[in-house]
Amino acid sequence: MAQAFKKFIPMFDRVLVQRFLPELKTKGGIMIPEKAQGKVVEATVVAVGQGARAENGTVVPPSVKVGDKVLLPEYGGTKVVLDQEDYFLFRDGDLLGKFDS
Amino acid sequence: MAQAFKKFIPMFDRVLVQRFLPELKTKGGIMIPEKAQGKVVEATVVAVGQGARAENGTVVPPSVKVGDKVLLPEYGGTKVVLDQEDYFLFRDGDLLGKFDS
Amino acid sequence: MAQAFKKFIPMFDRVLVQRFLPELKTKGGIMIPEKAQGKVVEATVVAVGQGARAENGTVVPPSVKVGDKVLLPEYGGTKVVLDQEDYFLFRDGDLLGKFDS
Amino acid sequence: MAQAFKKFIPMFDRVLVQRFLPELKTKGGIMIPEKAQGKVVEATVVAVGQGARAENGTVVPPSVKVGDKVLLPEYGGTKVVLDQEDYFLFRDGDLLGKFDS
Amino acid sequence: MAQAFKKFIPMFDRVLVQRFLPELKTKGGIMIPEKAQGKVVEATVVAVGQGARAENGTVVPPSVKVGDKVLLPEYGGTKVVLDQEDYFLFRDGDLLGKFDS
Amino acid sequence: MAQAFKKFIPMFDRVLVQRFLPELKTKGGIMIPEKAQGKVVEATVVAVGQGARAENGTVVPPSVKVGDKVLLPEYGGTKVVLDQEDYFLFRDGDLLGKFDS
Amino acid sequence: MAQAFKKFIPMFDRVLVQRFLPELKTKGGIMIPEKAQGKVVEATVVAVGQGARAENGTVVPPSVKVGDKVLLPEYGGTKVVLDQEDYFLFRDGDLLGKFDS
Repeated sequence: MAQAFKKFIPMFDRVLVQRFLPELKTKGGIMIPEKAQGKVVEATVVAVGQGARAENGTVVPPSVKVGDKVLLPEYGGTKVVLDQEDYFLFRDGDLLGKFDS
Repeated sequence: MAQAFKKFIPMFDRVLVQRFLPELKTKGGIMIPEKAQGKVVEATVVAVGQGARAENGTVVPPSVKVGDKVLLPEYGGTKVVLDQEDYFLFRDGDLLGKFDS
Repeated sequence: MAQAFKKFIPMFDRVLVQRFLPELKTKGGIMIPEKAQGKVVEATVVAVGQGARAENGTVVPPSVKVGDKVLLPEYGGTKVVLDQEDYFLFRDGDLLGKFDS
Repeated sequence: MAQAFKKFIPMFDRVLVQRFLPELKTKGGIMIPEKAQGKVVEATVVAVGQGARAENGTVVPPSVKVGDKVLLPEYGGTKVVLDQEDYFLFRDGDLLGKFDS
Repeated sequence: MAQAFKKFIPMFDRVLVQRFLPELKTKGGIMIPEKAQGKVVEATVVAVGQGARAENGTVVPPSVKVGDKVLLPEYGGTKVVLDQEDYFLFRDGDLLGKFDS
Repeated sequence: MAQAFKKFIPMFDRVLVQRFLPELKTKGGIMIPEKAQGKVVEATVVAVGQGARAENGTVVPPSVKVGDKVLLPEYGGTKVVLDQEDYFLFRDGDLLGKFDS
Repeated sequence: MAQAFKKFIPMFDRVLVQRFLPELKTKGGIMIPEKAQGKVVEATVVAVGQGARAENGTVVPPSVKVGDKVLLPEYGGTKVVLDQEDYFLFRDGDLLGKFDS
């Protein structure tokens, strides 16, 4: 993993993720043409912000940590290029769920 | 039931449900053509998040638990495919009601 | 009354009602043609949720109970079919008023 | 005044009013043609709800009582027919003012 | 000043004002044609409500009192006719400023 | 400076400002044609309101005082003519910044 | 760095930034035509406001300080020209992240 994201700290409740590589073959080994490869919605968390500020001023820590496997919504997220690698910023609250390792 | 959802933990107040299988026959035993099969709005809860965060920072647990039979709204919900099975994510607050077992 | 609704528990501040049967005759006994029968906006409460959660987390009980006669708004409400009978779900706050029995 | 409204209790911060009868003659005694009769915006309060719930759960009583003469906004309000008489439901906060008796 | 407004009490944070009479002549004494007379945005406060209710239920008194000279926004306000005189209702918060007498 | 504004007190968090006179020449002394003179976004504060009311009812004083040099947003603001001079009303929160004298 | 910004104090939670100069050459030394130079989204913080006011009136300091390297969103921000230099104002909450120096 490129080290660039180590230096990047998302702000507030933002979470930086890297999408899994798309499946190129079916379970049966058949090549999947690029067009048929659905959008990858599974990703790994590579950096998290400190968390959002609640109304009473306290900081609410994010609910995921670096290394977590998460399920992304189909839409949304901001693309961020760090050291020529694509990452995506999501709000903690927009992540759909995480996979218990 | 596929084990995939066991590893999947919905975030915040999201609830993962699996819809009942559609009724193929009327009570009188007559086959229902696919087009006439209405959208299945009854489902079983298969995973729940920790709950949403209230304004004062406390976590409000979801009001349903795994195994509950619930009534879904006709619209909304996010489709999630886990181990080739279709599940749906709803917000706890969007579920219309539950059937007392 | 069909027993299905006994097993159905509305969520949060939702209230399950059954509309009165439409008036088929005027007070003078004259048949009212279907088209002229206005939308029935009076109904009986058949099930209530626990109530909505206020911002401070406390649960605010609904302001109607099973058996109350209520006045529905002309629009809104979600149709729910239980045991082939039509019921409607309204939010407690959307009910216009109740008739003191 | 028809007794029907006595049995009707508006919900929350709703107020049931009956509009004054329109002025048929000018002060000078000249008949006013129906088209020229402006919309009656003065009314009498005939029933009030318990009041709305503030965020902290306390109930905020309505600021008018039965018998008050009030000034209605030109638009808004929900028509309610009770015992063949027309009444209107307004939110307490939408009433423009009241006439000190 | 007509006595009608004495009996009229605006609700909540509403303020009843009467606009100044439009300037018919320039300072130099030249007649201003009606079309050139801009909209009068200066007015006198003739009645005030008790004030709006803050979220915690306390009543916040209006920031103007009867007799104050105020500057109205160009748009907004509700026309109210009392004893054949035109008055206008504004929310306390929509008044732009007042002239220190 | 015309004295009119001394008598004018903006309401709540409104701030009365007078824009600087537009630069007629470049630093090099070249005349700037009127069309090329950009909108003047620098101004002096000439009057301030008491401040806005926070949710808990306390008054939050404005963050600028009379005499401050401020940077205005390009859009917004309400034009106010006092003694034939043009002033502008902005909300305290809409001012972009101030120049440390 | 021009000294103008030293005198400029952003208001509330606004942050004044200066964008990095665009990369004119690729890592391999090849000139990048202007059209191909993407929008510069990395910048240095040159001035910060005191911070926004939370609902309870306390001031929440900004989460960046002068000298921080930050990642800007692709859209938004207000252009501010100080001493013929271009700067941009962003809200603290709209900054995507910062680079740990």
